[in-house]
Amino acid sequence: MTLAPVLARLDADLDAALDRLMELLKIPSISTDPAFEKDCDAAADWLVADLASMGFDASKRPTPGHPMVVAHGGQGAPHLVFYGHYDVQPVDPLELWDSDPFAPAIEDTPKGKVIRGRGTSDDKGQLMTFVEAMRAWVAEHGALPCKITIFLEGEEESGSPSLVPFMKENADELKADLALICDTTMYDGRVPAITTQLRGLLAEEVTLTGPSRDLHSGMYGGLARNPIHLLANIIADLHDETGRITLDGFYDDVPELPDAIRAQWQNLAFDHGRFLGDVGLTEPAGEVDRTSLEKLWARPTAEVNGIWGGYTGEGFKTVLPSKASAKISFRLVGDQDPQKIHAAFVKHVEDRLPKDVSAEFPNGHGAGASRMPTDDPAFEAARQALSEEWGMEAAFIGSGGSIPIAGHFQEVLGMNAMLIGYGRDDDQIHSPNEKYDLESFHKGMRSWARILAALAK
Amino acid sequence: MTLAPVLARLDADLDAALDRLMELLKIPSISTDPAFEKDCDAAADWLVADLASMGFDASKRPTPGHPMVVAHGGQGAPHLVFYGHYDVQPVDPLELWDSDPFAPAIEDTPKGKVIRGRGTSDDKGQLMTFVEAMRAWVAEHGALPCKITIFLEGEEESGSPSLVPFMKENADELKADLALICDTTMYDGRVPAITTQLRGLLAEEVTLTGPSRDLHSGMYGGLARNPIHLLANIIADLHDETGRITLDGFYDDVPELPDAIRAQWQNLAFDHGRFLGDVGLTEPAGEVDRTSLEKLWARPTAEVNGIWGGYTGEGFKTVLPSKASAKISFRLVGDQDPQKIHAAFVKHVEDRLPKDVSAEFPNGHGAGASRMPTDDPAFEAARQALSEEWGMEAAFIGSGGSIPIAGHFQEVLGMNAMLIGYGRDDDQIHSPNEKYDLESFHKGMRSWARILAALAK
Repeated sequence: MTLAPVLARLDADLDAALDRLMELLKIPSISTDPAFEKDCDAAADWLVADLASMGFDASKRPTPGHPMVVAHGGQGAPHLVFYGHYDVQPVDPLELWDSDPFAPAIEDTPKGKVIRGRGTSDDKGQLMTFVEAMRAWVAEHGALPCKITIFLEGEEESGSPSLVPFMKENADELKADLALICDTTMYDGRVPAITTQLRGLLAEEVTLTGPSRDLHSGMYGGLARNPIHLLANIIADLHDETGRITLDGFYDDVPELPDAIRAQWQNLAFDHGRFLGDVGLTEPAGEVDRTSLEKLWARPTAEVNGIWGGYTGEGFKTVLPSKASAKISFRLVGDQDPQKIHAAFVKHVEDRLPKDVSAEFPNGHGAGASRMPTDDPAFEAARQALSEEWGMEAAFIGSGGSIPIAGHFQEVLGMNAMLIGYGRDDDQIHSPNEKYDLESFHKGMRSWARILAALAK
Repeated sequence: MTLAPVLARLDADLDAALDRLMELLKIPSISTDPAFEKDCDAAADWLVADLASMGFDASKRPTPGHPMVVAHGGQGAPHLVFYGHYDVQPVDPLELWDSDPFAPAIEDTPKGKVIRGRGTSDDKGQLMTFVEAMRAWVAEHGALPCKITIFLEGEEESGSPSLVPFMKENADELKADLALICDTTMYDGRVPAITTQLRGLLAEEVTLTGPSRDLHSGMYGGLARNPIHLLANIIADLHDETGRITLDGFYDDVPELPDAIRAQWQNLAFDHGRFLGDVGLTEPAGEVDRTSLEKLWARPTAEVNGIWGGYTGEGFKTVLPSKASAKISFRLVGDQDPQKIHAAFVKHVEDRLPKDVSAEFPNGHGAGASRMPTDDPAFEAARQALSEEWGMEAAFIGSGGSIPIAGHFQEVLGMNAMLIGYGRDDDQIHSPNEKYDLESFHKGMRSWARILAALAK
């Protein structure tokens, strides 16, 4: 089975592939908001129907949350499992979008054509790259090049509560020789990449309660404890003056970067001035004694993702509030254990509470960091296929974000995972005006066709 | 003109005075709700008729909102102006009332008889105490003991939009030797009080902008500046470890409490355990070396009244936000200048900003503190009159909140104001089941009769 006609078909059928992607993008499958439960279900149904139309044995599989989509097809070694997620981030603040997030469209921009809309890059556009590669393969050759399982999740943007239980219950069906995950970016606009190390994540919310009700700041101010002040102190104390995180034992399981990787990353000549400049910043923050790529890919962080308390509407209300809350997340590396970090965070908060203020931690969930064995020959084969498609030497890189699925494939199913994606740093995922480059979609499909050819025996 | 027969008449006519109060209470003069505009007008008409019946030259005076009632009577020094307001708070949630808020009645309670209904304590019951005192004086002596102007507002519960313009336009008519304001509480259930110092207020909002858009905390965390962290540091730095506010020069114009006032306040034996316990707290916050009453009445504060930034909805969004905001207010005392404090706050923020983070301050407005000259003999005369009526040494007290009318008399008309009221902390003003103790009404009338006698020359 040859590659060339598959690539030619992908080129010829690009418009049809885009039409299919637009259908999927129009479904507002926001997993974190219960108001969109039916839309998540509809996105799963759409995928099942599409995969079945290509000959996959595809089914929507219930979970306590949003359903999984599982599809099997092809035969022969190796058995590959492809992962993506059909759910998307919320769209607020909606007023910052220049167009309806769920009315996707192709746009001309100074940098080229882009597909604009929520989920274009994260992750519907990306998952459709491997679906389209497989469709073209089946169309040209009448069959997939090897045994393939497609495994699509609908809760990736809301903490994946059903993922590990589902993987455990269906381990026999999902276990394969290698997982291929399409939910990452290229190194930059030109250099394709396989992500081989990922930070983990511990996310928690904390609510402090001081007075039993909101008080008048004139009548009580100066004598009654204000929980916003306390929360500000707790957040201010998370970092010391050098940017290090102060939780007890936080760095115990953080390894130093191996020299080989450090050298490779130095060769990437990361331009932090441009990286920050693109988002309106000029000065690197964080640990003062670390390089920028190290901070982004190989060092742990503590970030407040949201904060609220008291009166936040128009005008002024001189309230001394009863409660103050924050959402805080820690990016984890090396062998940092989410449970241990959670305990250290709870202690950090509780150590700073006076007796009459209570703290609630309703929500903690996390996953450790992942590192892949780049000496597995499949990694080098895929790297070469990518290099050929893009005409640039592909790189093994790190990722600052957490893609817990990679760790789950390792821990639950004992498989390695290769993270290959075609997103760009300016895709504005999780933000207004998310986009996916048309080139990413097109070359992404072609890349998967090449990788399938390279891995099939 | 002697006092004794006036007091005797007030005792004898108590039932008639209550009947009159009930008539006024039945009018639902809710100023903030346009549905009750005619009722506000009717309350003003009722008061004009009642004051005219006692010989006052009384009139209803139009404003762009609800009318003022102005009445002149008597002659001789000093010229006193009495202030109260005839409008009341809304009554919702109505289902929490045990009786119709506008069907007032006398009720027996374990603590004694109360008048139950909306406006009993705030402020119709209070304003009728001075009206009844004057009626008894006229009935016994055929004339008021001095020149008196009554000035009643109908917009106090809806922000007093017409008050200052009306005072300015009618300054000649309203300017007198001293203002007497009946809209405050006693120190506690037993100790009558004259409020002689009120904290001022400077309110400001600050918004920090770091990245030009919300970022993904995985992709950018560790290298990009998070404005929530910066805001937390700025807030944490507002106070030092002893609870003092750190703005440059903040305490420059804060006077120490005069020894006489300090001694008087110590005698009040303020129970901060009960005060805080009522709102679920146990430990005094704020400056470690100050007494509780000093903190509430005579020390400046910095309170964050609201804070927001990043993702604050359900679930989790690992955003590194572009913006973080807080509403902050400073209670001012002594000669603290709101403009100077504002400048010090702006400097406090700007000194802590890296080059690539900007701060906006859209909203600053403020007013200085008010202190009445307790060495004016009228204050001591009124204090002694109160002490005699209640059989307890009356106190000059402070108030942590702002009562703008007192400042307006000072600033617009250049007059001192004496705040004397007979409300109790458990009157449930602004809440369901508002009440006014029958004792407050009865001794309140008698107190004003004594104060009139003490002040008239």
